[in-house]
Amino acid sequence: MASHWEEFYKTHLPPTDFEDNRSLLKEFCERHNSIGERIALVTAVHFVPFLQSGGTTVPLEHNTVRFVDNFSAGTRGAASAEYFLEQGYAVIFMHRTKSLEPFTRHFNGQKFMDMLELNDRGPNTTITVKPDSVDVLAPVLANYKAAQETGKILYVTFTTVSDYFWLLRAACECLGPLGPKALLYLAAAVSDFYIPSSELPTHKIQSSVGAPTISLQLVPKLLAPLVSLWVPQAFVVSFKLETDENILIAKARDSLNKYKHKLVVGNMLQTRRQKVVFVTPESSYEVLLSREQMINGMEIEDLIVSNVVISHSNFLASFKY
Amino acid sequence: MASHWEEFYKTHLPPTDFEDNRSLLKEFCERHNSIGERIALVTAVHFVPFLQSGGTTVPLEHNTVRFVDNFSAGTRGAASAEYFLEQGYAVIFMHRTKSLEPFTRHFNGQKFMDMLELNDRGPNTTITVKPDSVDVLAPVLANYKAAQETGKILYVTFTTVSDYFWLLRAACECLGPLGPKALLYLAAAVSDFYIPSSELPTHKIQSSVGAPTISLQLVPKLLAPLVSLWVPQAFVVSFKLETDENILIAKARDSLNKYKHKLVVGNMLQTRRQKVVFVTPESSYEVLLSREQMINGMEIEDLIVSNVVISHSNFLASFKY
Repeated sequence: MASHWEEFYKTHLPPTDFEDNRSLLKEFCERHNSIGERIALVTAVHFVPFLQSGGTTVPLEHNTVRFVDNFSAGTRGAASAEYFLEQGYAVIFMHRTKSLEPFTRHFNGQKFMDMLELNDRGPNTTITVKPDSVDVLAPVLANYKAAQETGKILYVTFTTVSDYFWLLRAACECLGPLGPKALLYLAAAVSDFYIPSSELPTHKIQSSVGAPTISLQLVPKLLAPLVSLWVPQAFVVSFKLETDENILIAKARDSLNKYKHKLVVGNMLQTRRQKVVFVTPESSYEVLLSREQMINGMEIEDLIVSNVVISHSNFLASFKY
Repeated sequence: MASHWEEFYKTHLPPTDFEDNRSLLKEFCERHNSIGERIALVTAVHFVPFLQSGGTTVPLEHNTVRFVDNFSAGTRGAASAEYFLEQGYAVIFMHRTKSLEPFTRHFNGQKFMDMLELNDRGPNTTITVKPDSVDVLAPVLANYKAAQETGKILYVTFTTVSDYFWLLRAACECLGPLGPKALLYLAAAVSDFYIPSSELPTHKIQSSVGAPTISLQLVPKLLAPLVSLWVPQAFVVSFKLETDENILIAKARDSLNKYKHKLVVGNMLQTRRQKVVFVTPESSYEVLLSREQMINGMEIEDLIVSNVVISHSNFLASFKY
């Protein structure tokens, strides 16, 4: 059995910058709520299989591990955040350090450097983007700047599962007052397992001692308190990744039955860039890119977000009779 | 005991892009060797504690894990590569995917975006770097472009320890003909342990089954065949990270006695940005930033590389009598 979530919070300290982030979350939610805007909380991680340190000191603490291939650079979350902004949502982008971010995801460091032209004239040196790169960069830059300047996006970063737990709960507390206008889009594949700190050595394990055996612990499922206690009125979307197609829909439906949220987006590791399946308590349907859309470079996240927004709008309409 | 390195190569396939990388390495080494240049092979990883997938498919294969805090963003390797270029070396930068890279390490994605100014005039749209960012960006960009244009840097990326093993051996084969003019600067903290593929499940472990226990295997030490067989004439520098100061120098000297290379750069996790200790078969001495150097923003890698280059030059001089 997974350890209970309350127990997890009791035994794991909040991250050091927790209060700062909580203030930012509070200000952001209050500001957008006061003008009646919808907020999407989008979570993302840059990869899944990690056995990652939990603090700034040795030894490792609260490490986490999950047995899935490194399927995720955080693309789903980062891309989806852009599309939610396009759809008029304010976005809290809660992502793991070093995962891809909205907008900047299109250009890595070397790509940026290669786009630039140095006009070296001593004190009058200028740097410009090469004309043939402007076409690609300009629309992304315009959207990035618009989101920054209108205060429509808040970036919150975490490193460990424990950080994530603290931030997610804090975000929910701030989103609560929005009621059904809050949308939670939980694209971060949270670790299933972690290494309890009691199992961790004080110093680096000397390899001369031989190879160790590690006993992992199950991470509690936060979806339970999130849906039933923290944001009971919100529209909650979770993600389910499987490698075995035969169990995908059944697992998604199990999850809906257990946690009572609105929607599970199921995807297969192998086809996740072309196809997902939307599973609701009443139905399941595929959302997939056509051949033409793929050729035109459309991203599946564009379709996923459009469909989620329609469901969210229907959900909101159901309150107004 | 660590499994033998020959056994490791027999049981782990080369990465898919191996032949491409081998050709690039060969061309690079031949070109610089033909004009009498020194080459530094610099290895780097973006962090140490990982339990990382080994392929593009599920299940995980050849995963690796090491019990050290996430001390490294690959800064040491990326920074050192810049300083080797400054010192006139050609550089093979062999780094883990997503680790920091020379030059681009100074600017993350958002920093880049924030430096840019969009002058939106329809078809005549231009993008320029803001004047106050030019001062910072111009010298880095100039060095980046110079290294690219003169063909003085080759980037080679790996993801898993197994990839790293294959690439490192291939690089050594190409560096062999340079004799003592080859410098190996092995800043990548290679995992001590990995998960043998026989321990890995075919599908994602269902968390309902409960938390697993993993038995790890020791990764063989490549330094042994590297020094004695692959590049016996080269100047080889290894790194030793410890968290317990009392054993640092002793461990470094053990390593020199065992592998017979030229230099171990020892560092403590806590002070690695200010101080290292150079351990040679004959001596040990500290290399550290002064207070003034720190205030001026000097990086310890600048000092490390200067000192390594002096040692390498002395070593080369010893052949010429």
